[in-house]
Amino acid sequence: MSGIAKTPNPPYYAVIFSSVRTDGDHGYGAMADRMVELAAQQEGFLGIESAREGVGITVSYWASEEAIRNWKQNAEHLEAQRLGHKTWYSEFEVRVAKVERAYGVTQA
Amino acid sequence: MSGIAKTPNPPYYAVIFSSVRTDGDHGYGAMADRMVELAAQQEGFLGIESAREGVGITVSYWASEEAIRNWKQNAEHLEAQRLGHKTWYSEFEVRVAKVERAYGVTQA
Repeated sequence: MSGIAKTPNPPYYAVIFSSVRTDGDHGYGAMADRMVELAAQQEGFLGIESAREGVGITVSYWASEEAIRNWKQNAEHLEAQRLGHKTWYSEFEVRVAKVERAYGVTQA
Repeated sequence: MSGIAKTPNPPYYAVIFSSVRTDGDHGYGAMADRMVELAAQQEGFLGIESAREGVGITVSYWASEEAIRNWKQNAEHLEAQRLGHKTWYSEFEVRVAKVERAYGVTQA
C-alpha cells in the first residue's frame, strides 16, 4: 500500500478522501487496514495510495462510477463510515473525480 | 497547507501528484515550499493538500483545465519539474481529474 498505484490508461475514477483525525486510536488503525483489504476485493478496484502528515489523503482508483457506488454501500464499509463520522475524524472531505489523463515515471 | 482545502461546489479539477522521493534533500524542501507559494498565486488555483508517508500525495485543485495547463507551463515550475524528474523523485505519477461531486464535514 505504501507506493504508487499501478493504474491502467485513463479514463477511470478517483475517490480522494482527505481527513483530519481526532486524538487517540479508538480502533482506527485496525479498521483502516481492514478497509484497504476489503476495498481491494471489490469489483472494479484499481488501486489505492495513502499518506498522513497532519492531513491524511487516501486516493482509491476505480473502473467505474458503479464500482464506487457499490463500495460506498458495502455493509462493513457503511459501519466504518458511521464510526469515521462519529469518532475518528474531526474533518473530512470526499471528492469523486474522473481521471482524464495521466503520465509519470514508475518502476516496473 | 496542512489541512483540507476549502474548495467550491463541483465541477472543478484536481491534479493528483503521487511520488516516491530519492534519498537526501538536494534542495527539495525549499523548492516544494516555493511551488506551493507560486501555485497559490496562479489564476484558477483553488487549494492544495499534501502529505508524505512513504509515498507522497499532493492534490492541487483548479477551476479549469486551462488553469492547469498554464501552471504546468510556468517557467519556474518547469525548472522544478525538470529537477524533480532528474533528482528528487525515483517514481511519480500525475493524474488530471475532473471532480464531479464532493461531500464532507469541515470546520468553518
